[in-house]
Amino acid sequence: MTDVHLEMKPIGFVRSPYQTTAQIPRGLGAKHEAEGVLEIKPELEAGLTDIEGFSHLYVLWAFDRAEGFDLLGAPPSDNRQHGVFATRSPRRPNPIGLTVVELLRRDGTRLHVRGIDMLEGTPILDLKPVLSKVAPDNLRTGWLGEAEQARKTSG
Amino acid sequence: MTDVHLEMKPIGFVRSPYQTTAQIPRGLGAKHEAEGVLEIKPELEAGLTDIEGFSHLYVLWAFDRAEGFDLLGAPPSDNRQHGVFATRSPRRPNPIGLTVVELLRRDGTRLHVRGIDMLEGTPILDLKPVLSKVAPDNLRTGWLGEAEQARKTSG
Repeated sequence: MTDVHLEMKPIGFVRSPYQTTAQIPRGLGAKHEAEGVLEIKPELEAGLTDIEGFSHLYVLWAFDRAEGFDLLGAPPSDNRQHGVFATRSPRRPNPIGLTVVELLRRDGTRLHVRGIDMLEGTPILDLKPVLSKVAPDNLRTGWLGEAEQARKTSG
Repeated sequence: MTDVHLEMKPIGFVRSPYQTTAQIPRGLGAKHEAEGVLEIKPELEAGLTDIEGFSHLYVLWAFDRAEGFDLLGAPPSDNRQHGVFATRSPRRPNPIGLTVVELLRRDGTRLHVRGIDMLEGTPILDLKPVLSKVAPDNLRTGWLGEAEQARKTSG
């Protein structure tokens, strides 16, 4: 319960087609089909052993170009304000991003993946295998579900 | 591409029924049905606005009682060695844990959840809504799938 400070160091960097945040698809219906490479540091290569058996990976990464945070904000998919922990806003108390990517192939320490939504050069903090379909059929998606529904009925 | 160091600070702490790692179900077929509370710091309460609309949350947390890391290790579900990034081992270069929990109810800054697999007092780094079923039907789960299959055919 001590208020520890944790220090994190990149395990590698993202090679992405996106140079600026404006290039990244955002908001309702945004599709992340971009391909890129997760370049892991050579000294960590053994940690990738057997990773190619998994079709999907969680990538934990750092919003290294975000500064500060907002507890409330309006995401691109809605014009109402929501709590930061109910959104994927980059302006978070701990600027960690989470993306699920499809692993296309591994080439040594280079993981070729689909589903990139990070900027070029983004520091990678961790990789984990996706072990199961994490969400059941009765998933509720709060304000986002409402915003999607509103778009459908108005379209 | 600079080798940044990132400093993280807990946004709150986990109230868990588990006091020691030995009490946490591990390995193949382990079910995480334990209920617990995510206690978020009072000054961050506005960041929880609307979170109760989501049925499932990603919890990013710190393995604060793990020290150091192993690039290769044998998880409880298999007797073969696998790369740390192909497992959920606590001994990781950046000791970040990721758990999907079901949000049962919110009581101010206390989120009552099901699916706890962290120790009592674990520092929470971030919360994010689960927005979609992350993995498709054709999910492949590598060595874990093989180990599960082996257990089924031997049973």
